[in-house]
Amino acid sequence: MDFDDSDKVARLRAQLSDFMRFHVEPANVAWHRDVAAGRYPSALIERLKSRAFSEDLWNLFLPSLGDDDPGQRLSNLEYAPLAEIMGRIHWASEVFNCSAPDTGNMELLQLAATPEQRRQWLEPLLIGEIRSCFAMSEPDAASSDARNIRTTIARDGDDYVVNGRKWFITGAAHPNCKLAIVMGVTGDHLDPNSTERHSMLLVPMDTPGLSIVRNIPVMHYHSPEGHCELLFRDVRVPVTALLGEQGKGFRLAQDRLGPGRVHHCMRTIGQCEVALELMCERALERKAFGRHLADYANIQDWIAESRLEIDQARLLVMKAAHRMDREGNAAARVDVSAIKLVAARLQTRIVDRAMQVFGAMGLTPDTPLSYLWTWGRAMRFLDGPDEVHLRVVARAELASAKAQAGRNAHHFVPPDALLGG
Amino acid sequence: MDFDDSDKVARLRAQLSDFMRFHVEPANVAWHRDVAAGRYPSALIERLKSRAFSEDLWNLFLPSLGDDDPGQRLSNLEYAPLAEIMGRIHWASEVFNCSAPDTGNMELLQLAATPEQRRQWLEPLLIGEIRSCFAMSEPDAASSDARNIRTTIARDGDDYVVNGRKWFITGAAHPNCKLAIVMGVTGDHLDPNSTERHSMLLVPMDTPGLSIVRNIPVMHYHSPEGHCELLFRDVRVPVTALLGEQGKGFRLAQDRLGPGRVHHCMRTIGQCEVALELMCERALERKAFGRHLADYANIQDWIAESRLEIDQARLLVMKAAHRMDREGNAAARVDVSAIKLVAARLQTRIVDRAMQVFGAMGLTPDTPLSYLWTWGRAMRFLDGPDEVHLRVVARAELASAKAQAGRNAHHFVPPDALLGG
Amino acid sequence: MDFDDSDKVARLRAQLSDFMRFHVEPANVAWHRDVAAGRYPSALIERLKSRAFSEDLWNLFLPSLGDDDPGQRLSNLEYAPLAEIMGRIHWASEVFNCSAPDTGNMELLQLAATPEQRRQWLEPLLIGEIRSCFAMSEPDAASSDARNIRTTIARDGDDYVVNGRKWFITGAAHPNCKLAIVMGVTGDHLDPNSTERHSMLLVPMDTPGLSIVRNIPVMHYHSPEGHCELLFRDVRVPVTALLGEQGKGFRLAQDRLGPGRVHHCMRTIGQCEVALELMCERALERKAFGRHLADYANIQDWIAESRLEIDQARLLVMKAAHRMDREGNAAARVDVSAIKLVAARLQTRIVDRAMQVFGAMGLTPDTPLSYLWTWGRAMRFLDGPDEVHLRVVARAELASAKAQAGRNAHHFVPPDALLGG
Amino acid sequence: MDFDDSDKVARLRAQLSDFMRFHVEPANVAWHRDVAAGRYPSALIERLKSRAFSEDLWNLFLPSLGDDDPGQRLSNLEYAPLAEIMGRIHWASEVFNCSAPDTGNMELLQLAATPEQRRQWLEPLLIGEIRSCFAMSEPDAASSDARNIRTTIARDGDDYVVNGRKWFITGAAHPNCKLAIVMGVTGDHLDPNSTERHSMLLVPMDTPGLSIVRNIPVMHYHSPEGHCELLFRDVRVPVTALLGEQGKGFRLAQDRLGPGRVHHCMRTIGQCEVALELMCERALERKAFGRHLADYANIQDWIAESRLEIDQARLLVMKAAHRMDREGNAAARVDVSAIKLVAARLQTRIVDRAMQVFGAMGLTPDTPLSYLWTWGRAMRFLDGPDEVHLRVVARAELASAKAQAGRNAHHFVPPDALLGG
Repeated sequence: MDFDDSDKVARLRAQLSDFMRFHVEPANVAWHRDVAAGRYPSALIERLKSRAFSEDLWNLFLPSLGDDDPGQRLSNLEYAPLAEIMGRIHWASEVFNCSAPDTGNMELLQLAATPEQRRQWLEPLLIGEIRSCFAMSEPDAASSDARNIRTTIARDGDDYVVNGRKWFITGAAHPNCKLAIVMGVTGDHLDPNSTERHSMLLVPMDTPGLSIVRNIPVMHYHSPEGHCELLFRDVRVPVTALLGEQGKGFRLAQDRLGPGRVHHCMRTIGQCEVALELMCERALERKAFGRHLADYANIQDWIAESRLEIDQARLLVMKAAHRMDREGNAAARVDVSAIKLVAARLQTRIVDRAMQVFGAMGLTPDTPLSYLWTWGRAMRFLDGPDEVHLRVVARAELASAKAQAGRNAHHFVPPDALLGG
Repeated sequence: MDFDDSDKVARLRAQLSDFMRFHVEPANVAWHRDVAAGRYPSALIERLKSRAFSEDLWNLFLPSLGDDDPGQRLSNLEYAPLAEIMGRIHWASEVFNCSAPDTGNMELLQLAATPEQRRQWLEPLLIGEIRSCFAMSEPDAASSDARNIRTTIARDGDDYVVNGRKWFITGAAHPNCKLAIVMGVTGDHLDPNSTERHSMLLVPMDTPGLSIVRNIPVMHYHSPEGHCELLFRDVRVPVTALLGEQGKGFRLAQDRLGPGRVHHCMRTIGQCEVALELMCERALERKAFGRHLADYANIQDWIAESRLEIDQARLLVMKAAHRMDREGNAAARVDVSAIKLVAARLQTRIVDRAMQVFGAMGLTPDTPLSYLWTWGRAMRFLDGPDEVHLRVVARAELASAKAQAGRNAHHFVPPDALLGG
Repeated sequence: MDFDDSDKVARLRAQLSDFMRFHVEPANVAWHRDVAAGRYPSALIERLKSRAFSEDLWNLFLPSLGDDDPGQRLSNLEYAPLAEIMGRIHWASEVFNCSAPDTGNMELLQLAATPEQRRQWLEPLLIGEIRSCFAMSEPDAASSDARNIRTTIARDGDDYVVNGRKWFITGAAHPNCKLAIVMGVTGDHLDPNSTERHSMLLVPMDTPGLSIVRNIPVMHYHSPEGHCELLFRDVRVPVTALLGEQGKGFRLAQDRLGPGRVHHCMRTIGQCEVALELMCERALERKAFGRHLADYANIQDWIAESRLEIDQARLLVMKAAHRMDREGNAAARVDVSAIKLVAARLQTRIVDRAMQVFGAMGLTPDTPLSYLWTWGRAMRFLDGPDEVHLRVVARAELASAKAQAGRNAHHFVPPDALLGG
Repeated sequence: MDFDDSDKVARLRAQLSDFMRFHVEPANVAWHRDVAAGRYPSALIERLKSRAFSEDLWNLFLPSLGDDDPGQRLSNLEYAPLAEIMGRIHWASEVFNCSAPDTGNMELLQLAATPEQRRQWLEPLLIGEIRSCFAMSEPDAASSDARNIRTTIARDGDDYVVNGRKWFITGAAHPNCKLAIVMGVTGDHLDPNSTERHSMLLVPMDTPGLSIVRNIPVMHYHSPEGHCELLFRDVRVPVTALLGEQGKGFRLAQDRLGPGRVHHCMRTIGQCEVALELMCERALERKAFGRHLADYANIQDWIAESRLEIDQARLLVMKAAHRMDREGNAAARVDVSAIKLVAARLQTRIVDRAMQVFGAMGLTPDTPLSYLWTWGRAMRFLDGPDEVHLRVVARAELASAKAQAGRNAHHFVPPDALLGG
């Protein structure tokens, strides 16, 4: 694990930073203006996408690609600092065809799609022609435990018929969203604890019976891409829409998680850096009782704590990315739980401090802070609440302690040795 | 910065772990028995030192050595994981001639000693024949600010005469402690803010006028090596005892700090790992209300949080060590403040959780926890209280923000863009 | 200070709880439906107001009233538990003519209005015919320090002319809001540190030149009553619109604060009780990994901590109310800073836990939690950020320590007494 | 519950404060000198006791007394502020015959002793002639769950024979300690979950077979009264030594707890006030980087937070005392868990801040802080670890939520009401 950038990464980093500075940052106000007016900023985005594609700042997240597919073929560790840079503007990833949930969906299709499915869905995704969503979580169920999923996928002749309700489906409101990868129960007859009960289906968004009930406000924020509630009522697709084998949905979902979480976490780091920079700038400008906020020791403490926390979190995420590269996603399962925990809590904590330094302005949409806090808070549930991941980390630790029982016996000093006789 | 061990480090790590397991750990009870009986466990220690010396597990901390000096010549980054292993037993470093404050003193003597001083003090230190202390902090002064130091070093003919009081002088009660490196004022006539007012002097411990007033209990713990209060009353040494140039004491003290803090921090990591292991073992054994503590979600949370915190702290310390190796101690000044902050607070936090899992036993001397907490708490002042280091980190951050003022202007969205018109 | 309710309070409490249960709670969905559709729920509110008025559950907040004014004439301590009950539904206070900022405005008018001003503004406020706002805070100024206020109030013949910009003006978007009490500079020639530079003016909302620039979203939440940005451009009112004396605006603002903060804090307590109840109910219903969330020790810890924090906060608020009743608002200044600190942080902390227990649903508008968190977060700035109030409390403490210097000398044990000789 | 002192309490408070100031405080150094020299300061204590007795500042803790017994017959709420005053010097309670565990033991003997037992033990305790200990907790058992107690009390003819090991038995090393109230198993044949398996026995400390194994250092602190490990090896006492009925030990232990915890908590409040005063005094005296610590905003924050926390905790303890007075110890069971939690954590938190302000001196025995922290830490286990009490509070809360299930249904707004149609 080499924490110093390779030449290749250093070059991409500089190129990406320049791109952000000269093309993305100047478009930020326009992006918000469109969204405030109720329009997805498609023209703006498409223009930036063309440019990014032509500079080969494209599909940076994807380690392995087909011979002809556009992209840089970076490892997770190499991609990490680039994700951090993109994360600085929350809508920027789309410009580089690196936004969730498409990244995970493309990985999934690479892994399990038939040639026909690749042609129909993966190719247009890889060139940024369409977008997609991943329909797994459901209302009224702790979706961190896939066994709670209740949407049904029933075989009916040469078709599958989907019935159920999904929510918090990110990206479903994007005007280009053409595909939903849907997780549902195909093995209702199996033991409820079986991990072979679920399958994944590729469902075109315009299939009859599939409707977007609402774009759910998250802490009152309406995402233009949407965190949507979807209703599937007798949604019928041909059996060829099955992704991978029947009953393997759970395993596919597991495989999908690792890299996506690294991406989220590194974008979080980027967002936290922005929040810390804003906090510092504001503290340098604003006065209270005759002194700049930057001169108050409590504000200084917040700044220092934020720096310490960000730097530590970044290193942990990179270590996880490194393990994923070297040992595979499965081996990094506990690391991935760890970084997910660290990153989401980091974001709400640091942004909260920044908001406090900004005063009431920190709560308005005039700065990115309110959005960043909200997204950080949502991250504490995304792919399972913090508590589930704490449990994963703790159980790994306890298992390791159990395996080495007795190794610390020498640390217990018998009281009679301490009587000083 | 390569986080994977080199072959050399992997080999030393295995060798050191075996040494700890087969020689140090089995001696732990005897060490405590001697100390409880009021004896420094010199026989035990000397026996282990001989063996470590013969295995070349010696002076591992010291990157550069003279041609004939014993040692491995490791970088700070290479030494870090070894310091962690030694840290697992709080008295183990001495066995490998790697204990504070001698490590820093040897570095200082390497840097600034005359040939005669090297012969008299550095050589016996390098072979573990003697020990030493570093007499800088004083009662009634915030010693984090060297300008507060008031002990005087006055020239009188061919002698220097020292008068003053020092406290928390670690190691002064060790039976082998023969040397005090004393910081005092030689430039009383200079501006109080000058950094050229202080000098360092090499004072033999048996010089008339130098007395140990008391071995100060730290949270009631009497260290056998001592955190002592020293009185200097007309202590006279020849001018050849001056270390480096007159007026350069402050700079020498600065140079001395970096590596020693990395060592402290890595030992802290080792101690925290021990505390976490003990916490897990206890939680697996002990029952309350019919279930093992390990099955309670709050205890699991403590375990998981501890794992997250330790792993992040270790990475941060290694990053600081890496910067020190690559860019020098001065360049790593802020990093060193950062790790000092993280490590000390980590130790009290994790040990506190472990104590809670142990119940009342956690407060007794029967486990290492009470000592580890106490030492962690002391670390929060060692080389300056946390608040001083938070200030260092914050000012670096603010300076960087100032240098890039305006870089985030694009993040501020003018309200009229948000009116949705 | 009697913490047991008097008979009078017990009776009002029961009456108010019943009113909430039978009239307000059943209207909650309709209230939200109107607001979601972009309508202020005036019909619903007026219907409930009539009923509350007829039951004499009216103006409960106001200790002293004119002979003919409707109300119960309760002390602050007596009102406190009633405010808590109203707080359980965030829009309920209006039903009882007890909502901010009108409560503070009515107190202010009672204190300083001329008979004509009372007739024009206080009387319709007391009977709930109109609503009002209080225009003090300004963008680009730390409004916690009134000296930063820059809106000007210039004398021009028999008129005053107002120019400036205000923001976060609560209630300005309410359809019944007819009056703005405006704070501005009348003494521009005076020393910038003078507290006689500001005056208050009664400005009808429909005065030409006064416009609502926007209803500022707070963490993306658009309050139907509004937290508005107001622009005053040559807004002209007759000199009879001055409230109290010229130059006394600062003092009036100070006088206004105490009771209003007690009200806010007690409503906070009510909101926190709701959040805790919801958290418990959800924990009892929802399962993860085969057990109810209520059976997990970490969730139990959150619940217990919440109970401890709420109960302590309530007692502190009541103690402040009691001091205000007995010693006056000025004497309770530090207490009022204290409760403001405690309450706002309490609300975000407890609601955050509740959201976590709800999972993703906790972020939606389907429960009151997202609103409650947002309001709690805003409370951390309302009437000055937390840091200003921490400073008030600390300075009072330090002053008291200074006044008693030396009282703890006996606690310092000279080292020689501890040497055990 | 009247938070204003009654005249009686106000008078006692003034009298007690004067006594502390003129008699106890001046003796503090001498007390420590004796203890450091290994002597219990009996002469000093007895002299002060005589004076306190003669002033009727005696047995203040005990609500009900026999006709001729010395004391003031205060309620728990009346005693609370007096306990706070005594708590300011940790050894002061003994002077007023108000120290644990004797207070609880006297209450127990009042409740359950036979006339002969009263004469033999209660009377000398009430006049301060002897002291006593309460031998319940055992090593290797979570003593928070009395069912884990394993010491046996076997009937043998007209005797009981005790075998077992107890630890952390406070007061057993006091030179006047003549009595141990021992909890042990008499009903070994009963169901392990039965609460009738244990009994209490009055065992003279000089009974053959009873030995003090060690005075356990608590975080390295050797209490002069002792937190001792006791060994019972065939300790034989006549059957008349049984306290109360056989099999009622568990219930007696429960009855004993409430008031003692209120006392502990109020002493904690007193100790925290001392720590806060010391913190302020030090911050006002000590400089760093040219300014007094009291001028730094982070130190101010610590001071303010401490004030907020202490005031809230005191109110909570007084509320619990009030309930105990009005509704009995059993009704206040959850309140007593709550205050125990709040107080112990308060003490370590506030003292930790004070230590940090003192710098290294805060760790020495030269100030009371190291002792106060240690005692606070021990309080987190005393009478059951925090986690047990969190569980008690949580279960009470959940039970109440269950009983009112559905009361918050009106808070859930159906999504369709929010679509704004």
